[in-house]
Amino acid sequence: MNFKQTKTWSQIQDYFQSIKDKNLIEFFDKKRLDYTTFDFNGIYFDFSKNYIDKKLIDLFVSLAEEIDLSRAIEEMFQGKKINFTENRAVLHTALRSQSATEIIVDNKNIIPLIHQTNKKIKRFTKKVIDGQWKGFTGKKITDIVNIGIGGSELGPKMIVRALKPYRNHLNIHYLSNIDPNQLDELSEKIDIETTLFIIVSKSFSTIETLTNAKSLQKIYHKNFIAKHFVTVSTQVEKAVEFGIAPENIFPMWDWVGGRFSLWSPAGISIPLAIGFDNFQKLLKGAYQIDEHFRKTKFKENIPFIASILSIIYNNLFEFETETYIPYTEKLKYLPDFLQQLLMESNGKSIDKQGDKVNYQTGQIVWGNIGTNAQHSFFQLLHQGTKKVPVHFIGELKNTYTSFSTQHLMLLSNMIAQAEALMKGEKNENHYKNFEGNRPSTTILFDEIKPEYLGSLIAYFEHITFLQGIFWDINSFDQFGVELGKKLAQKIYSETKEMNISNTHDPSTKFLMKKLME
Amino acid sequence: MNFKQTKTWSQIQDYFQSIKDKNLIEFFDKKRLDYTTFDFNGIYFDFSKNYIDKKLIDLFVSLAEEIDLSRAIEEMFQGKKINFTENRAVLHTALRSQSATEIIVDNKNIIPLIHQTNKKIKRFTKKVIDGQWKGFTGKKITDIVNIGIGGSELGPKMIVRALKPYRNHLNIHYLSNIDPNQLDELSEKIDIETTLFIIVSKSFSTIETLTNAKSLQKIYHKNFIAKHFVTVSTQVEKAVEFGIAPENIFPMWDWVGGRFSLWSPAGISIPLAIGFDNFQKLLKGAYQIDEHFRKTKFKENIPFIASILSIIYNNLFEFETETYIPYTEKLKYLPDFLQQLLMESNGKSIDKQGDKVNYQTGQIVWGNIGTNAQHSFFQLLHQGTKKVPVHFIGELKNTYTSFSTQHLMLLSNMIAQAEALMKGEKNENHYKNFEGNRPSTTILFDEIKPEYLGSLIAYFEHITFLQGIFWDINSFDQFGVELGKKLAQKIYSETKEMNISNTHDPSTKFLMKKLME
Repeated sequence: MNFKQTKTWSQIQDYFQSIKDKNLIEFFDKKRLDYTTFDFNGIYFDFSKNYIDKKLIDLFVSLAEEIDLSRAIEEMFQGKKINFTENRAVLHTALRSQSATEIIVDNKNIIPLIHQTNKKIKRFTKKVIDGQWKGFTGKKITDIVNIGIGGSELGPKMIVRALKPYRNHLNIHYLSNIDPNQLDELSEKIDIETTLFIIVSKSFSTIETLTNAKSLQKIYHKNFIAKHFVTVSTQVEKAVEFGIAPENIFPMWDWVGGRFSLWSPAGISIPLAIGFDNFQKLLKGAYQIDEHFRKTKFKENIPFIASILSIIYNNLFEFETETYIPYTEKLKYLPDFLQQLLMESNGKSIDKQGDKVNYQTGQIVWGNIGTNAQHSFFQLLHQGTKKVPVHFIGELKNTYTSFSTQHLMLLSNMIAQAEALMKGEKNENHYKNFEGNRPSTTILFDEIKPEYLGSLIAYFEHITFLQGIFWDINSFDQFGVELGKKLAQKIYSETKEMNISNTHDPSTKFLMKKLME
Repeated sequence: MNFKQTKTWSQIQDYFQSIKDKNLIEFFDKKRLDYTTFDFNGIYFDFSKNYIDKKLIDLFVSLAEEIDLSRAIEEMFQGKKINFTENRAVLHTALRSQSATEIIVDNKNIIPLIHQTNKKIKRFTKKVIDGQWKGFTGKKITDIVNIGIGGSELGPKMIVRALKPYRNHLNIHYLSNIDPNQLDELSEKIDIETTLFIIVSKSFSTIETLTNAKSLQKIYHKNFIAKHFVTVSTQVEKAVEFGIAPENIFPMWDWVGGRFSLWSPAGISIPLAIGFDNFQKLLKGAYQIDEHFRKTKFKENIPFIASILSIIYNNLFEFETETYIPYTEKLKYLPDFLQQLLMESNGKSIDKQGDKVNYQTGQIVWGNIGTNAQHSFFQLLHQGTKKVPVHFIGELKNTYTSFSTQHLMLLSNMIAQAEALMKGEKNENHYKNFEGNRPSTTILFDEIKPEYLGSLIAYFEHITFLQGIFWDINSFDQFGVELGKKLAQKIYSETKEMNISNTHDPSTKFLMKKLME
């Protein structure tokens, strides 16, 4: 059942009519912060500058009961095959479970498997970090290159940048694009004697990843491949054939999707960058929000409150987009990560019954860093004709004792933007008038440390999941990427062989001809 | 007069009703490519996979006549004060004029001023590149740090990355954010003995820029400031007080807006990176499209055709966004540049008569690099409920002779995505069905060289301008950024002095308290 089929939905629509033209500031009764702000182990969530109130939350709680949301949540955690189009369980939460409770997939408890894999990762990362792993000339490893694209890059890259104060001496690079320009930039930065490459590809056949890996493989004599390449893949045979030692092949599982895989061996660049103990803390922080999500009643459940805002903006106000603005360079890759997480998961049109939906699903997610974004597109956020719910994210602790003024200015700007968007300011000169009533959410970290960052990412994962339940779609497949891949292979072969088939339209032929010139 | 007030608009609306549900492929008659593709000096524009046809173009040409678009274009080029809310001319085109024709601003011909300034830039950049400019210990300059934000960063940074094959030995860095994390990252990369800082701030008082500049100023003894700092600013007195030598102050002019300023001294990091001759070629390429724009009849006018697509998607289909996907790492910063150019220019709600518009203006612009984006948000583009017009941009020439396979795969992917978006593919399994009819534009460079890149950027500038004429708004002010700045100053002072005023709402107070803890 989707949200529109519930009895509560018409009540929500009616109630929405009565509040949609209110000024946001009118929502601020004395108790507003009590039910719209949350303090979760060092992260503060402020949802108060949004179009919600107690009544609307209660209505959504009723809606959640109607669609049996609690059961859907338990089904995910317990390993039911909720990715039904691919007949797979969805168990990124199992990867961070701190409990001994069994989780059964295909009649087998996966918890021991996860623990055993983590031990292997711990040994491997320690060996590299401590300098026991040597390159072909006997030198210690100084640089790690993670070769992977999509989920095999975006999460780990975001986290490794965010946790810079926790980093060891290893330089971590990410190679993803098939564009040789990226490989060229990378090659200026690394020394092949002291670089370890990690090929992250479940199938060991992602075109971008394998093409890049093979280009790099050529640099080394075949006897030395095992000293410079490891892999995260299910394809043991292909990996061995490539020259990788069997003990340096880390597993992937079909119950972890790419965009949820940073907690798995696919995120191995994270413990390499910050050490295994810190990686464990990241997992622990995620587990804490998992527990909160699973056990807290909806009206105090942080991912739940955040997810109903998605429905309010996407399906009642009918805004197409939302924007994420981290006011810290540490989280500069967060918007890219969230683009994949939310858009690849919920950019779908077919419901669980196989029918085309008659409502809007996945929002368009975009963003950029603050304060820079203020000098770029904030003009439109304040005075444009389109409304965009904004997510502000900041860190209270100043990492650098010598820059307290800058840090205070940075966060003052963030808070001021949220205030300005909501309250606006009347001016008789219409060009200088600010209408206000533009909603935003603010998330403040005490400090960006592994535990807290783990909690934040898991929070976004649960929002993604909840949206999919409301919209009655499968958030865990991605068939929409297949057609382009197939046509790319065809166009590549035809242009290479200088033989354009008649199946293409005139525009495609025109472009292919340019490619052949 | 805005587009809606024209007689032609109702005809356009009627005609739109008759074509909006057509399959895109049905538009392909034998002559389609003749009027939807353009070859401009080494850049190919393919608009054919969009909802336009000959009739619709003709209608928009009529509309353009009704609103006297030709006159609006001439007014810009001739220096009329079309930025009427600030009483300023808009003359970024004058900066690249290769003609001797006078352009008069406030009774003065500005062309000699531009030439004289360019000579000064040429001398200065040569001195630095040739190693005649020495730091305080007598060493040559190796690193340039451009301190600037918004328009003082986004254009130059994008171009310097795009023209990497034209770069000399100088390392160019961009420092923009007030976040100390960015300064910290920078400081790991530079040596203060061999670094030259360029402060780019018209007012010499942009908070981010000046705060960063002052932090860096402290590193040097005051007698050495002049050897390590130059500036682009109108505020000569403030710059001299900072310690900058008068001959190292480069001018800015109020007839060049920040987001159009890369052609001016604000773009000085470009000739430093690629040499003045290449910078001249960039200007020349822009001038070539200026001439095309100014002199070509509308139905063959490339920026005109592109701009009517904005109106079709924004005001007829009512899509909120458009996305830019460069299939080359060289243009990885293009989406950020375009976000500012388009959204800061046209994210406005008040028309030229001072009234609130009753139609949509500025689109939301977002994007990311291909093929990476295919593994991230392309799922939504293919199968989501929201339609997003896509702009693909690629480079035909392979910069690296050794990577021809990769390069061909990269461009095959780009062309395949455009084909897949338009044509879709039927599948009885609804989850694997692609509806198609998703429009896109493809721009192919023979090669990303200075001339061609100059043409491309000027093309986007003219689209921005044309949108503003259709929507009857001033594209050249940005009052929408002021309220946030003002409130940030207030919040900064109050939190610093631990004294929160009662003017703030409870949410803002809550966040300010966290900041004070």
